[in-house]
Order: sequence, then structure tokens, then C-alpha cells
Amino acid sequence: MKTSTLKIALLQDKDRGGIEKAAAHTERLIRRAAAAGAKIICTQELFLTEYFCWKQDSDFFNLAHPVPCGITDRFRKAAKRLGVVIVAPMFEARGSEVFHNTAAIIDADGTCLGKYRKMHIPQDPGFEEKFYFAPGDLGFRSFQTKFAPIGVLVCWDQWFPEAARLTALAGAQIIFCPTAIGGIASEPASLGALQRDAWLNVQRGHAAANTCYFAAVNRVGTEHGTRFWGSSFVCDYYGNAIALAPPDKTAILYAECDFDAMEKHRQMWPFFRDRRIDAYSNLTRRFDD
Amino acid sequence: MKTSTLKIALLQDKDRGGIEKAAAHTERLIRRAAAAGAKIICTQELFLTEYFCWKQDSDFFNLAHPVPCGITDRFRKAAKRLGVVIVAPMFEARGSEVFHNTAAIIDADGTCLGKYRKMHIPQDPGFEEKFYFAPGDLGFRSFQTKFAPIGVLVCWDQWFPEAARLTALAGAQIIFCPTAIGGIASEPASLGALQRDAWLNVQRGHAAANTCYFAAVNRVGTEHGTRFWGSSFVCDYYGNAIALAPPDKTAILYAECDFDAMEKHRQMWPFFRDRRIDAYSNLTRRFDD
Repeated sequence: MKTSTLKIALLQDKDRGGIEKAAAHTERLIRRAAAAGAKIICTQELFLTEYFCWKQDSDFFNLAHPVPCGITDRFRKAAKRLGVVIVAPMFEARGSEVFHNTAAIIDADGTCLGKYRKMHIPQDPGFEEKFYFAPGDLGFRSFQTKFAPIGVLVCWDQWFPEAARLTALAGAQIIFCPTAIGGIASEPASLGALQRDAWLNVQRGHAAANTCYFAAVNRVGTEHGTRFWGSSFVCDYYGNAIALAPPDKTAILYAECDFDAMEKHRQMWPFFRDRRIDAYSNLTRRFDD
Repeated sequence: MKTSTLKIALLQDKDRGGIEKAAAHTERLIRRAAAAGAKIICTQELFLTEYFCWKQDSDFFNLAHPVPCGITDRFRKAAKRLGVVIVAPMFEARGSEVFHNTAAIIDADGTCLGKYRKMHIPQDPGFEEKFYFAPGDLGFRSFQTKFAPIGVLVCWDQWFPEAARLTALAGAQIIFCPTAIGGIASEPASLGALQRDAWLNVQRGHAAANTCYFAAVNRVGTEHGTRFWGSSFVCDYYGNAIALAPPDKTAILYAECDFDAMEKHRQMWPFFRDRRIDAYSNLTRRFDD
């Protein structure tokens, strides 16, 4: 009798060529995932649009929406109708000159529980995000959904153990990480494979260190010379991948989370008990030189 | 021309039945590793003794030594003679009522660069360490050895991303983690396998998150009902295991570290640049409730 088991779904998708098309397609995927029994459903990063950060162009600011907006209303209605939690990461227009990379967290009764604004912003050729996104100012949070307390990180956040730790300390039992990560299509495949290994390994680490589930949802397809890796996955609290999507195809990835077993493991190895909070203050320094 | 490549060696060993026997045997292993070209050599946790923490017995305090002492002198001489760095984790008698689980870091010229006192102390059946070891008070450090800046963590520290991060922020390019981890021999092997996965995964994560090498050195053999896992490994900065020792045999595990390639990767993905040091202050709280 596994009364505590929860099915989640990750929507690994590609650019659908326009916001309305992407919204409609994603709504269909959510319906399908809900019909398959998924209770928490998460899309990839910036699922409504292409990955426009491949170049710095202020015209792309027109793709942004306030959060909440008509689009989040649409997904709030879907969440309520289907009785599922939806995590929907979008390009947020906050106000003059301030835009964020923001996930809306919608509960199963259709209420918007809140939002998470991407905290760590990358900047490198092909991923020109510091041009578009102001760093998040809402911190690392846990959202008490109908089914479980969950946290959300977005893409580049995935590399920062501080982010996962703070989200887990806030109570999250599953951390969702919508992302758009890939490599330059012209670079050697061997380098891409190693980078993908690093991406998987660092998130395995977050799961094992925080005794929680970790669910990474990536984009697929090639856009403007960037080949997104797909390979969305869910790690259990041992850091083992219990579900893994293909690198090159759209997919709905399902996984079962067993919170009773997780709780038992937490009681066996209570890492939080032994944290040396008296010795961590240098974590708020840039570098210890 | 790989001028920056460095060979390291991990001494995965078992209880040798006495401090003098263990010291002599370890000196032989160090000689062998140095002859094979290793420049930094690390023993397992508490390599001089049995893993006495299987029960709480104050008689075992008699196994402790000051650090430095005659035994560290012996290894200082070996380090100087062989031109190698030695990381030697011991049971430190600091003074009345205060004992630590402490690694001595000995440079290739025979000087003692300093020590690392285990910061995170476990306590569970079979691993009664809070009885023996006062929590370390020297913090997380990098030691500038002749060959590379290295950090040391000890066993239970391995589960704490804060520890690895602070050690990397201090400048360490390789983190050594001598350990004595295993499972209760009477528990199912399937549970042990999962726990070992978690152990590997969390340390993969440290390597990938901090773009450094991570070297874990474990004990082997069964002592008083605890079966130590062996499986010592070295992860590269992608979090991939580039060397892995057997689970049930003593071994000298060698790995090559390529610091030029690591530096190139750090320049491609400069995580330290983007840390949100303004948003990490809750890391010094026990729990964010």
C-alpha cells in the first residue's frame, strides 16, 4: 500500500512557432499527462516562445507578459478543471526596464500560489540572458501545493548547490528545474556529452544532499545554432535517475515519487541535523581570497 | 604537452591490527605510489586504527595522538624523502576532554602545512562519532602544496555542499575526502547499493558544482558488523568518475588531474561569477521554517 506515491510529469518540448500555438499545444499535453495520472506537471523554461536569448535584441522584450496574465488564467482554468498542479515558466514583464525569467506555480484548485524568479542569470555566447533578465528578488521558496511542497529553480540555478539547499530548507520535497540547455551545434559532440554529464551530475548531487526528488525539464530541437539536449530527468533522493527522456525528441516524462520512503531515508541520514551553521558565513562572500 | 597534469593516489586499505603495523604498511604503500609517479597521496580516514566508533567506549580515547606527533614526523620524513604530499587523517588528542578527527597535510618538503578537523560529525548506530569527536573549529581550508592547492574534508562532511563550496572558494582544486563508510553487514545488499549510489552521486555533484577534482578514499573489510564499501573514486570537474576502486579489496587508486583543461572549463562556465551572495544568508539557519 503506497498511499504516499505521487506521479509527476515533465513536458519536454520544442519551439512551437508562436505563443498561442505553444499555449494551445501545452494545454493538450497537460490534458494528456493528467489523464495518465500525473498530479504535478512542469513545462520547460520559456515554453511559450523560442529561446530568444541567442542574441541581444530589444525587440524580444515584446514577447514578455505580466505574471499573472491572460495566459496564466488559461492555465489556472486547466489546472482547476483537471485537478493538477502546473509549473509554467515564462518571460515576465514586470515594469519599465525590469523583466524576469519567472515560473508561475498554479495549484490544483486554480489559484496562483506564487512565482519564482530565476535567481542566477548566465551570460555567454548564445545564452545572452543578463541582457534580458533582471536577477530574481523573491528568493528560494517552497510552495505548499495540494499534493506536496515543491520548489522551483530555473536553468542556470541548477549549478548552484546554495539554491537547491535553500529550497530544500524551505521545505520543498520535489525541486522542479525547467531549463533550456544545450550546446553550440558546431562544437564537437564529445564536449556536449561531457557538459551534459556535468549537468546531470550536479543535479544528482542536489537530490542526494537534500534528500529530495529533483526534476529537470529541458527543451529539444536546434534553434539558431544551439542544439538543446533534451534528456529531461527525474532523480530520486539517492541521486539516481529514475526517469530519463530522449535527447532529441519531444516527450512527456513520468516519474513516481515515494514520500514515505524518502522520509524513512531522511530519518536514517539526517543531514540537516548536522549542518555547521556556525561555520557557513563565508558562503555570502564572492570568493575566499 | 600536458605540463599541468598531476598524478594522485588514494590508499584504500583495511584495519591492520595496530597503530605501528598500520603506519609501517602505509609507509610501504606511499613508497609504492610515489614510485608509480603519484605526487599527492591520501590515506583513508583513521588509517592507523580500526574504526573504533562502532561502539561508545572511553577506552578508545587511548588510541588518540596529538597532531603533530611522532607518527606525523615519520610521515613528514617519508614525504621529504620521496618528494610527495601526504594527507594523513588521524584521531587527534587535543587536550583534556577534547578529541578530533583530524587530517594532517604534509607538503613535499616535509613541512606540516596544517590540519583539517572534521567539521560535520555523524551519530547513528554503528557510527557513534559524536561520542568521540568534538566538531572541528578550523573551518574549511585550502592548503597550497608544492603541486596544487588542495582541500580536505573527512567522511560525513561529504554530504554537505556547503563544505565542498567553502573549500573550493578558498582555492582548492582537488578536494580529498578520506572516509570510513559502509553498511550494517546484516542489512539487505540492495539498500547498501543505493546508499553507495547516493554517496557517489553527492560527491559527483560537488565536483561539477565547484569545477574541481574530488577524491574519496574509503576503507574496506568488515569490522564489528559494519561492511565498509571501498569503491574509492576520483571525479573530474564534470562529476564523472575517472578512477574507481573495487568494493572489497585493498587498492592503490591512481588518477591524473589536468588543471589546464579544468581552467578552460571554469572560463566557459564561471559559476563563481554568478553566485547570488546577496541571497544566501539563510544558509546559516538550521531550517527555514
